[in-house]
Amino acid sequence: MSIHSVKRAQTHLAWDNSIAPVIHVSSGDTVTFDCLDASNGQITASSNAATLASLNVSLLDQVNGPVHIAGAQPGDTLRVDVCGLETADWGWSALIPGFGLLADEFPEPALKVWKLVRNSAGKDVSGNGEYGYAWFNEEKGIKVPLKPFCGEMGVAPGKDGAHSTIPPYATGGNIDTRHLTAGSTLYLPVEVPGALFSIGDGHAAQGDGECGTAIETPMKVTVRLTVLKEKPYVKTPHFTTRNPHAGTEEFYCTTGVDSDIREATRAAVRNMITFLGVEHGLGAVEAYMLCSVAGDLRMHEVVDMPNYVIGIMMPKSIFTKT
Amino acid sequence: MSIHSVKRAQTHLAWDNSIAPVIHVSSGDTVTFDCLDASNGQITASSNAATLASLNVSLLDQVNGPVHIAGAQPGDTLRVDVCGLETADWGWSALIPGFGLLADEFPEPALKVWKLVRNSAGKDVSGNGEYGYAWFNEEKGIKVPLKPFCGEMGVAPGKDGAHSTIPPYATGGNIDTRHLTAGSTLYLPVEVPGALFSIGDGHAAQGDGECGTAIETPMKVTVRLTVLKEKPYVKTPHFTTRNPHAGTEEFYCTTGVDSDIREATRAAVRNMITFLGVEHGLGAVEAYMLCSVAGDLRMHEVVDMPNYVIGIMMPKSIFTKT
Repeated sequence: MSIHSVKRAQTHLAWDNSIAPVIHVSSGDTVTFDCLDASNGQITASSNAATLASLNVSLLDQVNGPVHIAGAQPGDTLRVDVCGLETADWGWSALIPGFGLLADEFPEPALKVWKLVRNSAGKDVSGNGEYGYAWFNEEKGIKVPLKPFCGEMGVAPGKDGAHSTIPPYATGGNIDTRHLTAGSTLYLPVEVPGALFSIGDGHAAQGDGECGTAIETPMKVTVRLTVLKEKPYVKTPHFTTRNPHAGTEEFYCTTGVDSDIREATRAAVRNMITFLGVEHGLGAVEAYMLCSVAGDLRMHEVVDMPNYVIGIMMPKSIFTKT
Repeated sequence: MSIHSVKRAQTHLAWDNSIAPVIHVSSGDTVTFDCLDASNGQITASSNAATLASLNVSLLDQVNGPVHIAGAQPGDTLRVDVCGLETADWGWSALIPGFGLLADEFPEPALKVWKLVRNSAGKDVSGNGEYGYAWFNEEKGIKVPLKPFCGEMGVAPGKDGAHSTIPPYATGGNIDTRHLTAGSTLYLPVEVPGALFSIGDGHAAQGDGECGTAIETPMKVTVRLTVLKEKPYVKTPHFTTRNPHAGTEEFYCTTGVDSDIREATRAAVRNMITFLGVEHGLGAVEAYMLCSVAGDLRMHEVVDMPNYVIGIMMPKSIFTKT
């Protein structure tokens, strides 16, 4: 296995299968990406709300890449193991006019710059939530634990043309899924030769759904990229994680990505039924029943319009034989 | 404090403020309810799919009560502490034609009867998930942990008339929220004198969202009912819980109840902003930011039409001074 790197300037602003890869790697290789924050460097530790007024929105949500993985073909699955994450020592959150779940009720811009206190070596390789913390309001004693992940992880779509990096797609992208911390594994459907994987949008912490912004931060992230032939049923992002709060329980999650929340929810459940059929030999009726009694529906992303990401998380512990 | 009981036959089939209370209690009293399953006893341990065909749906989702709590007035809050839950030794799950998130894709009825293996004395008073288990498929090694709760908990609406017990409302009812295990506390807005609290719909286990049915079971449940004057901002169900999987972390949750999922989500966040303002002194802008970086959006109930229940769960550990 080789170790590669993608530099800070090696970014693109649309998902587009005509963008030439910045590096070529083999299946199983590890790649480190040096990513600016989602403002593409426009917001810094010394910014204030006025910075938001002059923000060039066409530069937002750049992703680093793309990376060509040898042997990846349409119909394959790209396995992305999140090996390590390292935030900057600062981050920002904002109310950006016109953006967010309650955008109509919060028309004024607001910016908060956070100081990120990173434990030990400043690297998160465990995903166990001991990465560090940030004071939200020290006087009031409100402290947010840091659980870093990247909001953007995706591959190039099979459909030609430039697709904005703002919404998520079936091929991933801005899925803003807080559970994709170090130690988790993401599965993406490959639609073009070489997969063309890119990543960005560092988040030091975020709640499920991200009703506004996360703690946005520059991020150094290392992932291992592996081509799988045996998971052709992966048609939207799937993942495994141990993240949901303090517990160490592991989950398998399928998602639905759609412009209608209910349809995204239905797709997530449908995808779990398929997974349970293929991997655990369950018929559709029993799989659907199992979803209802043991699977947790969670809203992963509700603000990157026009698409929502809804997930159903199944605890792995219920499968005592596998 | 006195201990009271409501018997198995003391049920009603609509939320209606004209239904006379079956008992009168004082604020702070404890009440034990002996509840049939949500089929109102029509499904038994020896039923099969044919039973579903002859189900009288007008008898479903009965609730036991109502209980009149002295001193409760419109504008007050009813605090419901879930003290203990005891399932039967059996339960059922079903695909009921026309009901469920994927009803159109699963038109045929199906019934599964579960054997519930309860640990120790068979009583759940901790909510720590060690109540017991049920084999979903012993041959395949699939075992579901039991985390009992009641799907229905509510008070009479201020609006006159009979309101079906199938959908949830701002006053509670069929909120089907899996986190309301023993040890949790539910807050409901009081709309009529005496509050008129009722409960039912025993669930031995259920995933967030309940895309079909839970493990439905007869339930003996004990709650403590307390009238609060100091939480007038509670306009939809709020709750505290330690339930989300293995962890022992405690959460404060606000919900939105609406026929539109997105509006229910927005209401949940709006209610959390209000809570953070009143209880933690945060301005609306900072409260909204905190929701986005630290609150988890979860789908509690997506099948009891026409209303959805969406919650935002805030970990209490971020508040280090309270």
